[in-house]
Amino acid sequence: MSALSYDAESDLRDRRRAVRELGAALRELTEAAVSTEVDTETLVEAAEQVRALVPALSSARRERGQPATADDGRRPRRLYNPAAGPGNPIAPPMRVEIVDGIAIGTCTLGLAYEGPPSYVHGGISALLLDQILGHAHAANGKPGMTVKLSLRYRRPVPLTTPLRIVGRVVRLDGRWTNSVATISTADDPGTVLVEAEGAFVVPNSEQNKRLFGELERIV
Amino acid sequence: MSALSYDAESDLRDRRRAVRELGAALRELTEAAVSTEVDTETLVEAAEQVRALVPALSSARRERGQPATADDGRRPRRLYNPAAGPGNPIAPPMRVEIVDGIAIGTCTLGLAYEGPPSYVHGGISALLLDQILGHAHAANGKPGMTVKLSLRYRRPVPLTTPLRIVGRVVRLDGRWTNSVATISTADDPGTVLVEAEGAFVVPNSEQNKRLFGELERIV
Repeated sequence: MSALSYDAESDLRDRRRAVRELGAALRELTEAAVSTEVDTETLVEAAEQVRALVPALSSARRERGQPATADDGRRPRRLYNPAAGPGNPIAPPMRVEIVDGIAIGTCTLGLAYEGPPSYVHGGISALLLDQILGHAHAANGKPGMTVKLSLRYRRPVPLTTPLRIVGRVVRLDGRWTNSVATISTADDPGTVLVEAEGAFVVPNSEQNKRLFGELERIV
Repeated sequence: MSALSYDAESDLRDRRRAVRELGAALRELTEAAVSTEVDTETLVEAAEQVRALVPALSSARRERGQPATADDGRRPRRLYNPAAGPGNPIAPPMRVEIVDGIAIGTCTLGLAYEGPPSYVHGGISALLLDQILGHAHAANGKPGMTVKLSLRYRRPVPLTTPLRIVGRVVRLDGRWTNSVATISTADDPGTVLVEAEGAFVVPNSEQNKRLFGELERIV
């Protein structure tokens, strides 16, 4: 992909910042909405006010299969990824860094991610683990799609507590990779709360064409 | 739990309706935000407008460990559940019904749930499957917590396509249950896209007390 001009690069940076700001604001509003105990009338008013904001954003929309202009394809991290994208209010606010090929995520989850009272929903733990495995695979040059994911829930994962999510590749074999990941609290990283084993595959060119058409890429 | 008076029951019904409305409005705004292609200035304005709505909802909040007043404990379905709660904008808009002890979910997912371009994120499929297994277990009198979840991704799950998620219990053994679940499109329910095997356990009274304290219940 050719380099962008200085102006285009600067515009893209501004746009990406605005996308992250909107994502952060919506994440804050979501957390307020699921934990609010204000009276019913205020809830009804809030719903109307939220709906009133939709048309301005909907006046120009991409459709399924169109990449977002804020994602220029040269940066591996997609802003709207539902597991770690800062522009997507659904995404847990997970920050990911790669250290020696190992993907390390950190986040603290609020009531929006609650399953059993005061603990993280098991499916949200799965979402975090699948995502961190994806980062580990990509960091090892094998960005792929999940084929198998096995999860073992050893202890409940607490809400409102800094978490540490670690993923590492254990085997590379052509287009296939195997990997393991864990969730623990940041304070007690040695005690595994949930662990995962994953098998991912990089689609071959025929699969890429069939699945993604003109996009022909999965990240 | 004692029956509510007519007025209290009517107030609760109104509150639950308002919670669902706010959830639906936020879900719509989230989908608009992740698919918008409006100019950067409009994104910045939208972020400010969203932030301006937070204080009204935040003026009274529950904390971790406090159940929502909109969930009265007599209805099994929690409004803020992040996998299927209509009051939680994170939750895929999955409707679940129980037919002969089998949990059947239906939903259509937008760009907010995108993993590989134009397909559902693998972790979101895991979230749906974990949730439908929970419904199947609860329908068989064993509301439990996930201990194991094994997922096999056979084909990518398309966005903007009506999906069918089916979960059933295959073995009941005291506090333990085993179950299986699948995701397919509504149009082609015989072709499995993702399948799951789960093992759940109902906490014993000592575990309930340790995990949930005074709440002493998991649903």
